[in-house]
Amino acid sequence: MALQSEFGIQVEYLDVDSDGVLDYEKLATLLSAESKTIVSLMHVNNETGVINDINRIGVMCQQAKALFHCDTVQSIGKTEFDLQQLPIDFLVASAHKFHGPKGIGFAFVRKNLVLQPMIFGGEQEKGWRAGTESVHQIAGMAKALELSYLHLTDEREYISDLKDYCLNQLQTAFPEISVNGKDTFYNILNILLPFSTEKTAMILFNLDMKGIAVSRGSACQSGSVKPSHVLAEMLNEKDLAKPSLRISFSHYNTKAEIDYFVETLKSI
Amino acid sequence: MALQSEFGIQVEYLDVDSDGVLDYEKLATLLSAESKTIVSLMHVNNETGVINDINRIGVMCQQAKALFHCDTVQSIGKTEFDLQQLPIDFLVASAHKFHGPKGIGFAFVRKNLVLQPMIFGGEQEKGWRAGTESVHQIAGMAKALELSYLHLTDEREYISDLKDYCLNQLQTAFPEISVNGKDTFYNILNILLPFSTEKTAMILFNLDMKGIAVSRGSACQSGSVKPSHVLAEMLNEKDLAKPSLRISFSHYNTKAEIDYFVETLKSI
Repeated sequence: MALQSEFGIQVEYLDVDSDGVLDYEKLATLLSAESKTIVSLMHVNNETGVINDINRIGVMCQQAKALFHCDTVQSIGKTEFDLQQLPIDFLVASAHKFHGPKGIGFAFVRKNLVLQPMIFGGEQEKGWRAGTESVHQIAGMAKALELSYLHLTDEREYISDLKDYCLNQLQTAFPEISVNGKDTFYNILNILLPFSTEKTAMILFNLDMKGIAVSRGSACQSGSVKPSHVLAEMLNEKDLAKPSLRISFSHYNTKAEIDYFVETLKSI
Repeated sequence: MALQSEFGIQVEYLDVDSDGVLDYEKLATLLSAESKTIVSLMHVNNETGVINDINRIGVMCQQAKALFHCDTVQSIGKTEFDLQQLPIDFLVASAHKFHGPKGIGFAFVRKNLVLQPMIFGGEQEKGWRAGTESVHQIAGMAKALELSYLHLTDEREYISDLKDYCLNQLQTAFPEISVNGKDTFYNILNILLPFSTEKTAMILFNLDMKGIAVSRGSACQSGSVKPSHVLAEMLNEKDLAKPSLRISFSHYNTKAEIDYFVETLKSI
């Protein structure tokens, strides 16, 4: 990792258990060292949907005088954030995850925190990030975020229902199926299929051919042959070798699409 | 500068003369030191339109086994580049400068050169730059570049004519006017107005109010109160204190707009 090798920053990774749940005790131990610390954790894991308790983490950081940087890419626009109450110092998000344009995101930086830019040059964005601002992208992102929160209650209910339906249909079709991760976020379902390893590539290829966009890991790793580094931390070797699928739901999906997906999976 | 303070890289700046012309002899001297060197120079200065001889610089770098990084933001889409012949190792460009979308650009990297990413994470763009690609921005940029080269000959002639016309009209209205920079690129005119210093802010304010978008320096510095760092390297103190204006022309501009601009300037 570049932080360690290039900047000499000591990096500690937190483990998760087989349900994907964070080791909060290890976090507490690390924070008790009272060295200058920034904690960087996702709110919702993008592959499994496992939720970190960011209020709990934030309070722990606050008590230990550590900074808390939270990747909310998976959850912004899909759940409420009260940044007046939530002890988060930095929050980052990507527009395309809440149906905004690709190639734009935003950062929330708690007042009075001073940052060094990574991209130098012009004085744009108070000198924090040089480069001509992409106004149409920013406007699109703002509108998308506004719409997300306008329709949040309805869409959350609709998507939660889709996920339940999908899991039920899958369990009916494949009784031995299991879910990766516990108490996961309402728009992500990560399943372990009771198929042999050899079938993994074939399954993904066939689903893709049928126009079904599900993945083995995150989109960032698509095309990569390595197994998911997230699941590698959760599953035992035998299960990790089996095919897992990450299914994301949006308010644009329908139950008919889920039926089609389950039928296709059955036919493979 | 961060390269020096954070990465311990020795940075040497090249001077320009009062015409904005680069000190090629100093460059040759520096290159003769035969230390591991990257030369980073603009092709066309964005404030004055002064052109650096990138073929000459490229050959000098090649002979000295130095790498040549060229900022062609001001010239891509507005003049021909034969990258088979031109000894450039890295070339960077911004889409909005050739009427593409804001917030996207591209880099040309000569084959077999190995780069370290600045943004880590996903495996996008061969791991050179993590982050979900903005497909619509990329498509828009490619189309804009294609159109630029499709219409290059006509547009260059039209814009060159506009610039000549503007300079003539300005010289008729203000005989004491002078041009900053020598043999400048066809779409930029940087003029030194024979007005007193106190008028600078007022001139810009008035032109802005009348819907005329010209600037004192680059857009990156707009809102900044500092005088142009480019002109500071070229002009004597007395001239630097006078108001200078940077005027850019595109094929969307007309002679009627130039008449309006010159009339407005006369009325101030």
